[in-house]
Amino acid sequence: MSRTLKSFAKHDQSTAPNGQRQVQRTHSESALKFVHKRCRRNGVLTLLAVCLLCNITLGEEGMYPMSELQRLDLKGRGIELTAAELFNPNSISLVDGVCRVNGCTGSFVSPEGLIITNHHCAYGAIQKASTAEHDYLEDGFRADSRDEEIPAPDYTVRVTEDYRDVSGEVLRVVTANMDFLQRTQAIEKRCKELEAAAEAEEPKLRAEVAEMFVGKTYVLFLYTYLKDIRLVFAPPQSIGNFGGEDDNWMWPRHTGDFSFMRAYTAPDGSSATYSLENVPYRPKRSIQVSAEGVEENDAVFLLGYPGRTARHKTAAFLNYEQNTRLPTIVELYNWQIDVMTEAGRQDRGVEIQHASRIRSLANTEKRSRGQLQGLLRADIAATRAAEETKLQTYIEQDAQRKQTYGHLLSEIASVYDEIEQAATREILLSQLRSGSRMGAVAYFLFDAAVERTKPDLERESEYMDRNWQQSTQTLLTSLQDIHQPTEAIILAGLLERLKAINANQQIPALAESLADQTDLLALATRLTQQSRLNDRQFVQSLLDSTPEQLQQTDDPMLSFIVKLHPLFDEIRRQDKVREGKLSELYGSLVDVKQQYLSADFVPDANATLRFTCGYVRRYSPEDAVVKLPITTLSGVIHKTTGVSPFITPEAVLTKYAQQDFGPFKNEQLGDVPVAILYNTDTTGGNSGSPIFNARGELVGVNFDRCFEATINDFAWDESYSRSIGVDIRYVLWITGIAYGANHLLEEMNVPVAVAN
Amino acid sequence: MSRTLKSFAKHDQSTAPNGQRQVQRTHSESALKFVHKRCRRNGVLTLLAVCLLCNITLGEEGMYPMSELQRLDLKGRGIELTAAELFNPNSISLVDGVCRVNGCTGSFVSPEGLIITNHHCAYGAIQKASTAEHDYLEDGFRADSRDEEIPAPDYTVRVTEDYRDVSGEVLRVVTANMDFLQRTQAIEKRCKELEAAAEAEEPKLRAEVAEMFVGKTYVLFLYTYLKDIRLVFAPPQSIGNFGGEDDNWMWPRHTGDFSFMRAYTAPDGSSATYSLENVPYRPKRSIQVSAEGVEENDAVFLLGYPGRTARHKTAAFLNYEQNTRLPTIVELYNWQIDVMTEAGRQDRGVEIQHASRIRSLANTEKRSRGQLQGLLRADIAATRAAEETKLQTYIEQDAQRKQTYGHLLSEIASVYDEIEQAATREILLSQLRSGSRMGAVAYFLFDAAVERTKPDLERESEYMDRNWQQSTQTLLTSLQDIHQPTEAIILAGLLERLKAINANQQIPALAESLADQTDLLALATRLTQQSRLNDRQFVQSLLDSTPEQLQQTDDPMLSFIVKLHPLFDEIRRQDKVREGKLSELYGSLVDVKQQYLSADFVPDANATLRFTCGYVRRYSPEDAVVKLPITTLSGVIHKTTGVSPFITPEAVLTKYAQQDFGPFKNEQLGDVPVAILYNTDTTGGNSGSPIFNARGELVGVNFDRCFEATINDFAWDESYSRSIGVDIRYVLWITGIAYGANHLLEEMNVPVAVAN
Repeated sequence: MSRTLKSFAKHDQSTAPNGQRQVQRTHSESALKFVHKRCRRNGVLTLLAVCLLCNITLGEEGMYPMSELQRLDLKGRGIELTAAELFNPNSISLVDGVCRVNGCTGSFVSPEGLIITNHHCAYGAIQKASTAEHDYLEDGFRADSRDEEIPAPDYTVRVTEDYRDVSGEVLRVVTANMDFLQRTQAIEKRCKELEAAAEAEEPKLRAEVAEMFVGKTYVLFLYTYLKDIRLVFAPPQSIGNFGGEDDNWMWPRHTGDFSFMRAYTAPDGSSATYSLENVPYRPKRSIQVSAEGVEENDAVFLLGYPGRTARHKTAAFLNYEQNTRLPTIVELYNWQIDVMTEAGRQDRGVEIQHASRIRSLANTEKRSRGQLQGLLRADIAATRAAEETKLQTYIEQDAQRKQTYGHLLSEIASVYDEIEQAATREILLSQLRSGSRMGAVAYFLFDAAVERTKPDLERESEYMDRNWQQSTQTLLTSLQDIHQPTEAIILAGLLERLKAINANQQIPALAESLADQTDLLALATRLTQQSRLNDRQFVQSLLDSTPEQLQQTDDPMLSFIVKLHPLFDEIRRQDKVREGKLSELYGSLVDVKQQYLSADFVPDANATLRFTCGYVRRYSPEDAVVKLPITTLSGVIHKTTGVSPFITPEAVLTKYAQQDFGPFKNEQLGDVPVAILYNTDTTGGNSGSPIFNARGELVGVNFDRCFEATINDFAWDESYSRSIGVDIRYVLWITGIAYGANHLLEEMNVPVAVAN
Repeated sequence: MSRTLKSFAKHDQSTAPNGQRQVQRTHSESALKFVHKRCRRNGVLTLLAVCLLCNITLGEEGMYPMSELQRLDLKGRGIELTAAELFNPNSISLVDGVCRVNGCTGSFVSPEGLIITNHHCAYGAIQKASTAEHDYLEDGFRADSRDEEIPAPDYTVRVTEDYRDVSGEVLRVVTANMDFLQRTQAIEKRCKELEAAAEAEEPKLRAEVAEMFVGKTYVLFLYTYLKDIRLVFAPPQSIGNFGGEDDNWMWPRHTGDFSFMRAYTAPDGSSATYSLENVPYRPKRSIQVSAEGVEENDAVFLLGYPGRTARHKTAAFLNYEQNTRLPTIVELYNWQIDVMTEAGRQDRGVEIQHASRIRSLANTEKRSRGQLQGLLRADIAATRAAEETKLQTYIEQDAQRKQTYGHLLSEIASVYDEIEQAATREILLSQLRSGSRMGAVAYFLFDAAVERTKPDLERESEYMDRNWQQSTQTLLTSLQDIHQPTEAIILAGLLERLKAINANQQIPALAESLADQTDLLALATRLTQQSRLNDRQFVQSLLDSTPEQLQQTDDPMLSFIVKLHPLFDEIRRQDKVREGKLSELYGSLVDVKQQYLSADFVPDANATLRFTCGYVRRYSPEDAVVKLPITTLSGVIHKTTGVSPFITPEAVLTKYAQQDFGPFKNEQLGDVPVAILYNTDTTGGNSGSPIFNARGELVGVNFDRCFEATINDFAWDESYSRSIGVDIRYVLWITGIAYGANHLLEEMNVPVAVAN
């Protein structure tokens, strides 16, 4: 599923506040991040000004930047709205009803700040509000009045207020004699300066520079960050995550993956953290929900923030993914999931502690498996290599062209070669500060202490003063999910793997821990048992320490990570060098590919707002199998076994038995539609994206892709690329009829069923 | 898959020659066997005379006895042959081309005794011919001349020669004052006497009495048993079992599950065991193969020997299956499969030893899981209970009827209650002489010794003089698959399970083995290591021992089982009592159901020849999924991963790459059709059944059902009951084009492709 949890898995939820540049990135994400990472990558709107590749060929594939809407034949695609009704920089338009909810997309569905997004996007909030006694994951949650809505302190909602092109202002700091590291650092610093200056002018807003085209264009966005977000309604996870990991990334699907949240502001309308006095946020535009739904072959379109795709990456990258990174991730994540699942088996409290992280890892693991299968079956790397051979022939046909571009492909390959050589070691090391949650805390504390001795603008993003409050808030919230015995097993397993690749020979800081120890579990148990890094007060007391103070602490886990810090720092430096190289090389590659193809193409996704359209449509994923595009409530009942993840709550069973479908029936199917399938182009980050009908009314909420479409990130194809959303009629049926929250239906101005 | 292996799993391959009444039956089969077990259940033709339930309602369901063909509207079902062309007791007809190959069905496809059946039906022969050096399982087998055909000593082919109704002659031995045990034993003995008398008259034939309707009708069949059966052609198991256990019981399917064998006789045409002088058997009728194949919605029909169904069993039986027997089997078989798989991981020799048994257990395990799922999802037991409530009301409406039938349902329930009480203990005990292969040998030796002290007609069937040679042959052949370390683990696991249910308290003979032992693996290792029951010469030397001699042997495994023999004997006695009770009760139940429904129904399958017809047809097994009824060679390639069970041999890949489809292409699909799906009514025993087109030509070979249709045995439904066969064009393409055995195509009189 294209969910926030993915970003959590990759970005380290505990230390990486949303909407900020990540420092604690694991190796697992770095390959995909090199290109789009110079400045913040979370810009919301793409400007006409950034369109280097105009006259985009209108293929079936396409995550179109807003700037391209004017060029699309919307009517020919069955859409009744004009481009200006969708997006208008000078007025209020449909996109103003779309917001970012942590790493997901959300839609304002009432003038009172009511937001609909995915259950898996609200999952962290539901989990944090749950205990073994008040188990909202298990039982669901319904606030009957505003008073009952539960604050979600680590959630933010981002609304775009303004933007301007700053490409010239950024790039003027780059000089010809800079090496790759210097170039990367200069651009990073310049972006921070521009942000600081903009925020000085507009103290209530947040400024973020987004790199739109690699090494070429930069846009400064001004955002309101709403910080008082509350949980309004969540179905039980047996609905919101029906089918669990079994059905994740799968179609047919029967998951009610939605929740409602609400944004609040200070009484004067300004952004504020939680307070009793706060009032509901009033969005510029709210989106009308349609209870009429869609049928097969109806046109639909989505708005959202697709994260990253790699359709223009080279075969060298695909080989690295296929041969090294994906298999390593599958192994490591499966193992950690098993450890955490086992630990939760006897204790619901521990199970809840691990729930969010297990989902996150399982989601990435299954996606990685799907990608691996897709890469192998379709032999995508070989196809791309063949294309590159042709491109290289073209380049070499002209002496000047050969001079300028002849080296690109081989140099890109050599960067990936270097990454691949170091990959196993670096992935395992990065796991010491992510797979090990105490390791993550220790790393944050010491890295922050080192970084915060630097001038603000030279620090890694999350330690800058402007981000510090949010970063530490996220860190502290994460502590409640640390379970020491699990910590010990995972730490020991990572050390064993490091020992097996002889990391002790290459890494002096690890030699002592690995070489002499025969019982690494005993070592890991000692480190984690004697550590207090799961103690909120203790961690809080260390937050303003100097590096020297931290070096003298007697916390064994902290000391263990402190010794490794120079190594982590060196890997970060190397990452920036590789990033700088790839950035420059890919920038030139785009130029020459454009010349060669004499046609432009849609740029890879980069977490900026994109438009994608298509149709509700069946597909045939394998020989002799056809999958239809609408599932039904009867299908939910049919799948129900009474054993997790196929449990259906009594409220649903009862209303189904009464055939109480209210106004939410698909007349053709004679049933409540549950999930829909459509051939739009989406990827991670599109979670929670509104699915609009031709008139721009909300008919569903996007939450996943089918298994074959996990390979979307590398190659899109109409035959298998399908996205999955929950049908709005199932949302309304569950909310109103099964769980009686008709006040929300009234707030959204949709028909309320008469009680049956 | 509806395969012989199932019967092996249930009937204990090592000790139970085909075509004989089983004594060594495990508890796992007994519940399904009670009703149809008085006499041999392998009769081949059903007579008009046995039709108690005439004017059968022509539902879509139906495994029709031959006697009903005259009543079917064959033309209305798209079949161009007349009933007399299908079956004619006074002349040669289509059924004369159909034979029984061990527990499977086969077809004579040439006048020279060439037989087509499933790869999984020939599996035992291929396995026994294979070694680590000549691995015909792995590489396939092709005899280029008759000389090269490999004898399959434990195979027999049964051809029906004559039959007559003997109901009166059987039932006259039953008197009113007999108890259930006496009744069962009297009928058994009478059947044996009739068989002996018939064989005295016709010394070259074998006589077998089959119970057609429970406790009501008996037919004596006269068979030729052909005993020199040879392997002619088998594809590599990567084709014959493509998809392995992953795809078993699944659609879409891409398995080339076929092999060719040949029957031989003495030069004078009489049945004989293997000899160089033997000549190919000349069947009365051979079946013409059609290379034209079928399309969706074409009519097809099957002839075959469906084993057993339980569509008329009561809710009490279904509850026993659902709550106790099926879950127990799933657990026990999964565990044994794991143990055997693990043992074979490092040693291809051991892997081959275990291959057949693993397939057999895995097949039953997956079918049981499918049945369990089907029972639970469709709540079949509840539906049947509701029907029974109505039947009981009807019965009680009339005083006379109440007097005669009022007790039936509750008494049947109390028999199942008794079975269920004892089930766990009895299933585990039965596993000591089936799951433990040395236990099976020990049991056979001692049970035979005891039985053979009795007059021939009073012995359990397999120990009678007429069966003794075949029984001991099968026993001795089975020894080569015993692997002592695996034996020890499985025996220990069974003893642990018995200990856990406190069997030592209830079973004095086990008390010594279980109570004092803390290390049951050490005990099992000692028993199996010091035993010589895997030594052919040793076992052979014991075959004619008396019970006393065997009691004095110092073989520890033999002694262990000998001590348990009185218990096994008592369980067998109890089984016969239960069988007698159920037989009488179900006989009356059929009577009153017939009165109540005022309509007749098709009797449950009982391994006699049945006709079933239907259409090549798609289905929708779940919400939003449609499965089309013909798979393709491209689908094979698409599924191929290069990792077992999805490996495709080079010969196939090459011919596919060349698109060398010869005359075997489905023009509509532009591809070689591989497997077909049709809505006929089949069950275990239909493996290898010929699939005929409307004109009675062979268009495929039946080998499985889809997963949803595992529940067929309990309830048939057009929406999910689908059978699976290999398309004859894939058979011909693999045999002729991929593996160059064009001489077989010529023998079958089908077009041979020009070499590409």
